[in-house]
Formats: sequence, structure tokens, C-alpha cells
Amino acid sequence: MKIAVMGYGTVGSGVVEIVEKRHTGTKRKPGDIEVKYILDIHDFPNDEFRHLLTKDVNDILNCDEIKIVVETMGGHKPAFDFVAAALKKGKSVVTSNKELVATSGAELLKLARENNANFLFEASVGGGIPLIRPLSQCLAANDILRIDGILNGTTNFIFTQMIDEGATFEDVLKEAQDLGYAEKDPTDDVEGIDAARKIAILASIAGGVHITADQVFTEGITKITQFDVETAGKLNCVIKLIATAKKCKNGKYVCLVTPALVSKNSLISNVNGVFNAVMVNGDSVGEIMLYGPGAGKLATASAVVADVLDCAKHMDVDRSEKWLANTPDAANDISGLICNAYVSGCGDINKATEVFGDVQTVVDGETYALVTKTPAPFTELKAKADLINAKIIRLI
Amino acid sequence: MKIAVMGYGTVGSGVVEIVEKRHTGTKRKPGDIEVKYILDIHDFPNDEFRHLLTKDVNDILNCDEIKIVVETMGGHKPAFDFVAAALKKGKSVVTSNKELVATSGAELLKLARENNANFLFEASVGGGIPLIRPLSQCLAANDILRIDGILNGTTNFIFTQMIDEGATFEDVLKEAQDLGYAEKDPTDDVEGIDAARKIAILASIAGGVHITADQVFTEGITKITQFDVETAGKLNCVIKLIATAKKCKNGKYVCLVTPALVSKNSLISNVNGVFNAVMVNGDSVGEIMLYGPGAGKLATASAVVADVLDCAKHMDVDRSEKWLANTPDAANDISGLICNAYVSGCGDINKATEVFGDVQTVVDGETYALVTKTPAPFTELKAKADLINAKIIRLI
Repeated sequence: MKIAVMGYGTVGSGVVEIVEKRHTGTKRKPGDIEVKYILDIHDFPNDEFRHLLTKDVNDILNCDEIKIVVETMGGHKPAFDFVAAALKKGKSVVTSNKELVATSGAELLKLARENNANFLFEASVGGGIPLIRPLSQCLAANDILRIDGILNGTTNFIFTQMIDEGATFEDVLKEAQDLGYAEKDPTDDVEGIDAARKIAILASIAGGVHITADQVFTEGITKITQFDVETAGKLNCVIKLIATAKKCKNGKYVCLVTPALVSKNSLISNVNGVFNAVMVNGDSVGEIMLYGPGAGKLATASAVVADVLDCAKHMDVDRSEKWLANTPDAANDISGLICNAYVSGCGDINKATEVFGDVQTVVDGETYALVTKTPAPFTELKAKADLINAKIIRLI
Repeated sequence: MKIAVMGYGTVGSGVVEIVEKRHTGTKRKPGDIEVKYILDIHDFPNDEFRHLLTKDVNDILNCDEIKIVVETMGGHKPAFDFVAAALKKGKSVVTSNKELVATSGAELLKLARENNANFLFEASVGGGIPLIRPLSQCLAANDILRIDGILNGTTNFIFTQMIDEGATFEDVLKEAQDLGYAEKDPTDDVEGIDAARKIAILASIAGGVHITADQVFTEGITKITQFDVETAGKLNCVIKLIATAKKCKNGKYVCLVTPALVSKNSLISNVNGVFNAVMVNGDSVGEIMLYGPGAGKLATASAVVADVLDCAKHMDVDRSEKWLANTPDAANDISGLICNAYVSGCGDINKATEVFGDVQTVVDGETYALVTKTPAPFTELKAKADLINAKIIRLI
């Protein structure tokens, strides 16, 4: 069966490598899949697959032989237009593009359904970690009560280094950039936007209603200091950027991405470096955790190729998610999240304890730190912290 | 759609509970699935579903309305006969019965294929943990190089208690029996037979060839003493009953279940109590881990119901595994496993160091303990230990 790959970057080239070079004809291998076209605006004069390259998307769209299109370009435009056009031609589409899925998932799933094609995106969250199928299929008999995930490898690497080496945020960010773990413009990672897209996708699967990234309350990690990291240690906790989707009483999810204090007794606290992990709590199954490399060329590509194989095996079978279209009230407001919080600030701790009431003092100094002891709405805790110009980090 | 449940024990009653009581009509719920019959030899005079009970399997086999049969009886006979008869009638079968799958998986899969039915068994390994689909579908583009799992909750509970409370094996076993975690006859658990069945199933999925439990080298935990547990701690390790399937150069897997020393730096070392976890190493994805409750009524039942939903959604679609039939050489001999080992014995440590060569002495006393430093075939290490009447535990 012939496929096309749109976007010959890290993941796209990994897909071509797995399909063209790693298949050995065994049952588990994509032996009967063949790449016919690779779409990219760049030239790759020395690439061994340069004969497959095209700069014209119509070569792919108009080729009847191509039944499955892989989209690994990233970004919303022009990926959206190319994917929509492929689906309209009845071609199934497999993508690793979280921005595309988080922004236009419901629309593209509808297009796929209308054209008897599939739209799959296992690789869009957690790289090579099996996540979408386990959540959607293996836990299909569960009411998903809560999801907590480390979904961004860059920020997790930064926290791990801050903890292990006592380094500052700025220094570790520079190291991460030098190692290629962080982009030159690290905004999407450190401001939590990347993780917000991913938890939006997971929450959409859990609830069957498309939640977009802008419905996820998002706070980055730039304000976390070495003081906070050390103080968390005193509480037997580590700081992680945690993406959470929690089902509220009205049946909708509240979604957020913020730094959080995680107990060292929790398995997720041991997820270090660029690894990702997702804990899922279902009403029947209880708590499970899925862990693995959240990025990387072959890891992510292996998830893409798994989707391609699923499409190829089920050409006339609907294998796609069903999401209702997004609405302004698809997700709950952040006030739906009840938690305790770590509070730190400069100045008089007595003023802080007055504001927060029943607390545990952790550090009483020029910079103070305390932990609240009565769970309250996150928004309320935040408003109180703003009042005294303090910083809060939720506890999970 | 009508289903039948054969075996109204822990898991079977969980299945009925999820299907009949927990469905709320949302998209994620088994809203259109209905239990028509429950097969059990016992009477349940006060059960709310007693009107569904039958003692005659023919009520189920001869009912054309029933398209999917759930088998949660356990054991090989008569489960095998009932399942085979249902498949021959073109009914899909979902089972949580690891003994049945490990013993007769290839045969039943073939029967299913011949009768245009499905035979699914997500719940047979790791209870509610998504394992079969992730391994079979999400990692389909991977060559599975190695699987290491904690697949038996009872033995893991025993080790956890021996470590945390310094208790003896015998005392903890009694506690486990009192808590209902261990059977009155704990042989299958403590001798590693239960875990052997589960790793046989996982290895069969990884390789596409049916490996049976008797092709798994199996050693239980009864010889592990508090001395070994404490000495492991000195090496920054914990002892776990680990089920391993490792792909050898000839493309076949060597499978074993034995106690093993696991580094505390490994995520799997933190898997405690009755929880299960499986680490999978694929050539493209690298290492992933799947973690969760390995047993329990609703957890296991939720995996069964997920399979039922998969069958219901794909009535004319082949969703089952493809396994070649078992052969005497389907798996490799245990000599294919190269490892280092922990060795302990009574008497003169010098004799042991002479036999094992380059070693690290851990305890030099009446009972000694050492660790080999040059990996060697497990069989070779074992033969050497037998020579001096010592015990060995592999390192992973």
C-alpha cells in the first residue's frame, strides 16, 4: 500500500526510515507499506530518498494510489489545509501534530467520517508512549475521573537539572538549548503551551467533546526559583510541570497546566529528564500510569507508523475518535479545581498566614514559604496570593 | 447487543456490574450492551441478577441473539470446551483467563478466524492495565527487544512487606492469605506459574508465535530469605519476581520468571504491593512502562468490558491476534539469557569467589553474598552455584 509523508523533518524522516529501512517482512513489520511521495519545501540533495521528494501537495492529493497520508509538518497552517484536502479525497490521515489536533480535531474528525476515511493521532501526545489507544479503547468502560501528566520533556529536563545540580532556571534553559532539547524560542515549552495542547487532546478523548488549548488554564515555569525547588525537597516533594484534566460534578473537565508539588512517594515524581508520563484515574480501573520517551525521532515515528498500520488494516472501518464540536463552555472554569498550595513570598510571613488561615510554615525568613492545610478553589488561593504579592504552586 | 457471562466469580460479577449498573448512556459507556445470561454452577439466591443465571451452557450456545461471550471462569477445563463451542457458533469470545490463553491461545485464535469471530484477552495479563493493545497495536512498528514485568501482585506484595517490615516469607504469606491477596493454595503465585502464563502471552504477542507457559523457565520466591532482601538493599537494589522475555539473535525469545535484583534507580523498583508494571523495550520507541492494578474485581472487569466494546464495534472486522501454532522450539532455551548474578550461600566465601572468578563481595560472614562482575549465561551461573550449594538471583 502506498503512503505519502508531508514534512520531512525529525519525525517525518523517522517515519520514512521505519517504513523503508526497518521492515523485515515479519508479521509485526510494515512490510507492505511503501512511501511514494515525501512533501517538503526544502531540498535534500544528498538524501537517499530524494527521488521521493516533491514540493507540490497536489502530487499527493491527486494520486489515487495513495490511501494514507502522514502529516508531520507541525503548526496549524498550511498543515490544516493539506490534511483537510487529503480527507476530502477520502485518504486517511495520520498526524503527530498536536497543534493541529488541539485546534481543529473535531472538525477534521468530522471531515474524515464524512469521507469514509480515518484521522488518527497517537503520536500527537507523549511521543512514542501508547496513550491515545489505551485511553480511548482499553479504558473505554471507565469514566475517566482524572488525568495528571508530565507532557513536556523540555520543562521536565529543566526541573530535573535544577533539582539534581542546584542550577538556576536560566542556566538550565541554556543547557537544554545547547543539547537540542529546547527550541531557540522556548516559549511554547516553558510557558506551558505545548503541554496545554496535549492535555486538551487527552481531555477531549476522555469526555468525547473537543476542548481546545485556549480552554486550558496555563502557567509556565519561568517564575520557579531554586528556593522553591529546595523548599519542595524539604516537604518531600519535587516540582514538575503538571497537566491536569479533572472531571467535575457537572460532567465537564477542568483543564490546567501549571507547576505543581508532587510527593516523592508518587511514581510520577521519579519521571526525570525528557521522559513523559501520564497517570489516569478511571472509576473502574483505579489508577494506571503510562511512561516513556515523550519525543525523539524514532520513538514518535513508531507511534505514527502504528497508526498507519491501523489505517491499512482497517481501510473501510471507522477507527477514529468521536468528538462533539468545541463550544465556549466545553471545559469548566479553573475555579472547579480544589487543591492545597505552596505559597512563597518576600516579607512578613504573618501577613501571609493571616490571609491563608490554617497553614504549615516551611521556611520563615526573608523569603518565606508555607503550605495551606485546607483545600480551596485554585482561583481563590491565587487571588489571596496576589493580594500579598506572593507566588502559589498547587499540590497534587 | 446481548452478551453472556460464563463464570460469576470476582471478575464475572464485576463485568455484570459495569455493563448493567454503570452505563449512563454517554458515548464512553457500554450503553447498548446487555447481559442476557450468566452461567455458573452455583446458586446466588439473593443476587439482583439471579434471573439471568443458568447452569446450562447450551442456553448460551444456542441463543442466536448472543453475539459476544465473556469467559471469566478460570482454569483450562471446562473453559476451553465452552469457549471453543462458542467460537464455532460464530460468537466472539472475551476472556480474562490467562491459563486458557497461555495453553490454547493459538488454537482458539485459529478457531475464531475460521468462524469469522474475535477472541480477545486484554484482561488476561496485568488486570486493568492496558497491555495487550499497546504491545500489539501501538508498538506494531517496533521490533520488541525485551519485556520485563512484575506480573504477579501476590509475590510483589510479599516482597514489599519483607522489605518494609523486615518480616519473613512465611509470615507475610500468611498475612497475604488473611487479606485475600493470596490463595489458600498459593503454589501458582509463589512458584511463579501465574507470572509464567502471563509472560508467555506477552512473548507470543511480541513474536507472533504461540509460546506456552511450560516453555518459560520458572523459579518461585520460596527460597528468598530476609538476609537476601537486606543484602539487596546494601547493593541499592530490591528483590522482585520478574518475568522476562528477551529476543535473541536467532529471532526467538527466551522467557523466564525468577526473582531478580532490580536497581532502586529503575522505575520498576518503586512498583509496590499488589500493583503490576511492565517495561517494554522496542527498537524504535526505546523503553516504555505500563503500570497499574494487576488484579481486582472492577479493574480486571473494565479490561474485559473494553474488549466487549471492541467486539461490538467491529462485528465483521478481524481484531484478534495472529499467532503461529506452538512448536517444541517456539522459545529459546534459558541458556540464551546472559546476566550477572547475586550469589549467597553458607560456608567459605573463598570457595565461591574461586568458582565465580571476578566478583564483588557484599557480605563476608557465616552466610556470604557476592555479585558477579562478568555477565555469563544464566545456566552457567546456576551450574556453578549448584556446585557449591549456593543460591543465585539474576540482576536486571
